[in-house]
Formats: sequence, C-alpha cells, structure tokens
Amino acid sequence: MNPEADNSLRMSRWNCPVELPADSERVSLSIGEGARHTRRFLQKTVFPRLRCSSSITDATLIEVEQRRLAICTDSHTVTPLFFPGGDLGSLSVIGTVNDLAVSGAMPCWLTMSLILEEGLPVTVLERLLDSAAAAAQQCDVTIVAGDTKVVPRGAVDGIFINTTGVGEFGDSIPAGPKSLEPGDRLLVSGPIGQHGLAVLSSRQGMAFLNAVESDLKCLLPGVSEVLKRGGASVKCLRDATRGGVSAVLHEWAEEANVSFELDQSSIPVSRQVRGACEILGLEPLHLANEGTFVAAVAPACAEEVLNVLRSVPQFREATLIGTVMPKSVTPVAVRRLFGSPIPLDEPAGAPFPRIC
Amino acid sequence: MNPEADNSLRMSRWNCPVELPADSERVSLSIGEGARHTRRFLQKTVFPRLRCSSSITDATLIEVEQRRLAICTDSHTVTPLFFPGGDLGSLSVIGTVNDLAVSGAMPCWLTMSLILEEGLPVTVLERLLDSAAAAAQQCDVTIVAGDTKVVPRGAVDGIFINTTGVGEFGDSIPAGPKSLEPGDRLLVSGPIGQHGLAVLSSRQGMAFLNAVESDLKCLLPGVSEVLKRGGASVKCLRDATRGGVSAVLHEWAEEANVSFELDQSSIPVSRQVRGACEILGLEPLHLANEGTFVAAVAPACAEEVLNVLRSVPQFREATLIGTVMPKSVTPVAVRRLFGSPIPLDEPAGAPFPRIC
Repeated sequence: MNPEADNSLRMSRWNCPVELPADSERVSLSIGEGARHTRRFLQKTVFPRLRCSSSITDATLIEVEQRRLAICTDSHTVTPLFFPGGDLGSLSVIGTVNDLAVSGAMPCWLTMSLILEEGLPVTVLERLLDSAAAAAQQCDVTIVAGDTKVVPRGAVDGIFINTTGVGEFGDSIPAGPKSLEPGDRLLVSGPIGQHGLAVLSSRQGMAFLNAVESDLKCLLPGVSEVLKRGGASVKCLRDATRGGVSAVLHEWAEEANVSFELDQSSIPVSRQVRGACEILGLEPLHLANEGTFVAAVAPACAEEVLNVLRSVPQFREATLIGTVMPKSVTPVAVRRLFGSPIPLDEPAGAPFPRIC
Repeated sequence: MNPEADNSLRMSRWNCPVELPADSERVSLSIGEGARHTRRFLQKTVFPRLRCSSSITDATLIEVEQRRLAICTDSHTVTPLFFPGGDLGSLSVIGTVNDLAVSGAMPCWLTMSLILEEGLPVTVLERLLDSAAAAAQQCDVTIVAGDTKVVPRGAVDGIFINTTGVGEFGDSIPAGPKSLEPGDRLLVSGPIGQHGLAVLSSRQGMAFLNAVESDLKCLLPGVSEVLKRGGASVKCLRDATRGGVSAVLHEWAEEANVSFELDQSSIPVSRQVRGACEILGLEPLHLANEGTFVAAVAPACAEEVLNVLRSVPQFREATLIGTVMPKSVTPVAVRRLFGSPIPLDEPAGAPFPRIC
C-alpha cells in the first residue's frame, strides 16, 4: 500500500492531532517478540514516559502494611485460539500465574478482561472460559474482577484476554541477575520449544508437527520446591516464554555483565521438536515455552536443587544445561560435541508473533 | 458473506475443536454496551463458568491482613484514539481510577498492558503514553507493572490499553442498590452526554458537534467530598459510562426492586449536547460519560451532599435530578413540564460501540 495513503487513512482513523510524515517510525512485530528489540523499545519509549523503573521483572512488589504483594499483567493474543495442549483460556490464567511463581510469589487473585470480536461464536467463548476456570482451580487462584468489551468485526482478531495477577512474595526471592557469578549453574525445568512448535503447527496446519504438544502448565509446584530447597543459592528464575531460553539468557547476560556457556548435548529437546526444528531450520533455544523455567543456581547447591525438582512429576526431565562464565564477546555460546563453542543469537525479528 | 463460508473460515482461523453450526449464537455488539444485554450475558455465560459472584460492581474487595484492598480491570478500545477533551491514554488511566473512586476506594497502583498493531506510528503511541502519565500523576496513582504485545496488521485496530487498578477502601463505602428506599434522592455530578457526543463527533467528523468536549476527568475530588459529608446516607455511587445514566438507573432498579422518577427540567445537559441530541434523535441519558457520576442519597442529607459537591470546582453543576419510587412497571420514568411521566428505555443495541 502506498505509505501516504496508508498514513492519511490511519490519521483519519485515529484522529491524531500531530502531522505524521509518511516515513515516521512504526511499531514493528519485533518489538513484541520479548527479546532485545522489546527491551530497547521499552527502555527508550515506554519507561521514561510512564516514569517506571527500567528493570524488566515478571512481577512488581507493592507493599501493604507488613505484607509484600506481587502484581503483574499480561495480555494474551495467541492464534489460533486452540492448540495442542491448551487454548487461550488456560494460557491466559497459567501464563500470569507463572509470572508470579517465578518471581517467588504465591498467586492469589486474578482479574480477567475480555476483548471480543463481534460475531465470535458464543460456544468458542464458553470453551475458553471453561478452560480458564479449570486452570484457575488447578493453580488455586480466584478470578475476582473482570471486564467485557465487544468491538466491531475486524477491530480485533476473535478474542484477546488480559489477566492481571496479584500474589504474595514468599520468604526466599531470587536475588536476580546482578547476583550472578562465574561458576553458577544453569538449570532448565524440562524439554524446550514445545509451546512454540505446538502453536506453529496448529497455525500452519503442519500435519507432521501434530505430535508436538504445548508444555503449558503451572510452574508453581516446581518453583516452590526449588526455592524451598535452594534458598538464597537460587539466584535467578524466569519462565522461558517469548524468545525462549535464548531471550532469558541474553537478558541476564546484559544485566549481570556475564556470559553463558551451554552444553548442547545436555539441553532437553523432545525427538519431535528436534526433528521439526531440523526440517524447518529453527533453533529450539529460540522457541517459546509456557511451562518451562530457567534457573541459575550457585554451584554448591545445583545438583541438590536439580534432584528436588526432578522429584516433582511434571519436572522429571529437568537438566543442568550450562554454566555462568566471565563476560566475553559472545553473551551466550553453545558447546557442541566437537569443535569450539558456537555463539547463540539473541532472537530478533519475531519469527512467530502471537505465540502467547 | 455466506454464513457457512464465514463459519468454516473462522473455524480454520481459530482451530476450534467443536463443530459449530453456521447458525450458532454469536457475540453481538450489544453485549458490550454496558446495559441489560451485558448483564444478561455475564450472568448467563461468564459468571457461572468463572465461578464469580454474580453481582456487578465497579471494584472487588480483596482482604490483606487488616487492609481492605479494591481491585478492578478495564480494557480500553475507544476509537478514534484522540477526541476532544482526551485520548485513549488519559482515558485508560482515569477510567480505571474512577471505577475505584466510585467504589469508595482510594486508587494506589495501576498496571498497564498495551496491545499494539504492527505499523502504528511510534509518535502516536508516545503521545498516548505521555497523556497516560500525566493522568496518572494528576490522579496520584503509580503505574507499577506493564506488558507490551504487538500483533500483525489487521489483528487489532491501532492500539488497545488494559489497565488494572488496585486501591484501598475507605471507611465509608456506599451500601449499594439493595439499600435504596423510596424517597431517596438521585444526584448527578454534572452535565451528561459530553463524552459520548465528543467521541461520536470526532469519529464521524461532524463539524457541528466539534464544540462538544468529553467530560473525561478524575472523580476522586468529588466522590471523596460526597462520602466524607454524606457518610452512610450515600447509598449508591456509580460513574455513568457505557449506557449513560439510564444504564446505571436500570441496573439499580433491577437490583433494588424500586423505580426511579427523574425531573427532566433539572437534568443538566449543555446547550451543545441538547442541540446535537435533537438533531441526531439521541437521548442524553443514554450517552456515555467519563467524568460524571450518579449518587443515591437519603433525603435528609441530599441537599447537604449536593452543596458540598458543588463546592468542588469541577462539580459546580451537580444537580438533584430525581427520586427513588416504589417499584412500578416502568423502572425509570421522566417527568416533563406537562403531562404524565414518560418511561425511559434502557439502552439496548449499542448505538455507539468503542466509546471507552
């Protein structure tokens, strides 16, 4: 489309009071991918204007009397609405519960705001609400407030769900990336890349991928065991959603001024995901997860924390995948069976938008 | 479009596991209008599934130790993004702050979740964030957490903003509609219909309406005075947003088993709004407001509460507009200069979607 026409069209649509040159900067999909571009955009455009702290965390502390509450918000726009292993309803609850969990908070309350497209079959909405309710029950959170908007056909793609979670911080909260030291071990709670491929397969109707199910699940049982046993030696926790494990590690590397070395042979990847990634030329470390977290643990406790995590049925396949190294030119490198470690790219360019 | 095609198209888009008949019930715009259809839909489809309390309030109580917190959520989808008297940014902050205020809570924290359309000019976003920040400062709330999603062109119309508000309930909270008794007086905090017409005019480019500005403003200064002076005699408070004053009164009438009689001559309507409504055949009582609330007050205190409210500059034009009556066949009737009171419709059919 001719940018001028496009621009004037949008201006009339938005009634924007400022004159916009046709070549004015536009929001790109990569801003939403959850990695470097997102971080840069937030730090440059959003945080200064909203006067927010510029550190990106999964949940924010709000102090009420002696109680330390955690709050986080997430809008869920996944397409298609139903995918192997979950749907928008369960994802909107579990995604937010997991953000609280990896922050070291016990989730208590959720708000749920529905943005519905005119013409959405009510049956579809009912199924999504049913699985949201089931997920809330399973995660032991209560949906306490909500909102429902309906917009005309075409103004939104089917249904988006925002959930905001409020929980309470426990006694042991990970100190965060700044506390990372060379020698700390990296742990991943299970096979990676499942969610990304599950959504991709159902979106593109790739029959050969249909065996892949999303890892969507509540992280609370695993995280609480890790924090209980690991205590202060658990330095960082993060659910590896948009941008996958790679995005998490690159963010930590930047904040902590360290590098990471991963051992390729120990990274848990299911046979189907490995196969699909080879066919499609994808890197599992870049794919989104919705029930898998990364932890950095002091070396002395790493084995012990790994074992307690493995004792939780859903996290039987947890593995130590690498080590924190002194800062080098490559923030994240992967050591293969032979040869020198190869650098791992930070995801950039949003290979799959609307993954969550 | 042929419904079958439409249906199969949508099914492939959503990947819905259930077979949907082409004639399956669809979400309609009227469900989002904030009046009867919304209530029925929530009570039939949403609340039972999410196991929520079926009473519709502006904010929910969550108890933390001795502290009584209020929480509410609202997704803002107004179009166009900029309108006389405000924009999506200020609306997304003030709208949620007002929901807390009319619940008798002092707003403290906000979360803000952005859903951006690929291609949105960054300048547009920057302006919206600037006015959101200004509004937050003016309302004395802190934006503590956020989320940013970008969806491909066409998946959302420009930008939607969800805000979730957390505040703290004060000592005097309105008892709610169930406490209404015949004789109680109805008070409106200012001229009605401004926001609805302001958005309509900027949307349709109706030059003759351009004089109309949205009433968008923080209700806190007015509400806190009313509650301080009125105490327990202030029985109901509600900001008259979607569906206007009419929607609020019809909802109260249903919950309280009473009727209302309004005195047309005392309903504050600006000259421009009255003129525009006559030309367009609209009822000001049906139009959305974003800085105007309705209060039901025990007769003994009504005048006193009115005067204290009028002493607040932004609410100088507050007026007593009617009285609670014993339940009759018409939930809300309007007494004109001559003749018998005429029944007032409950808004139904969403005359203007995406007003907030």
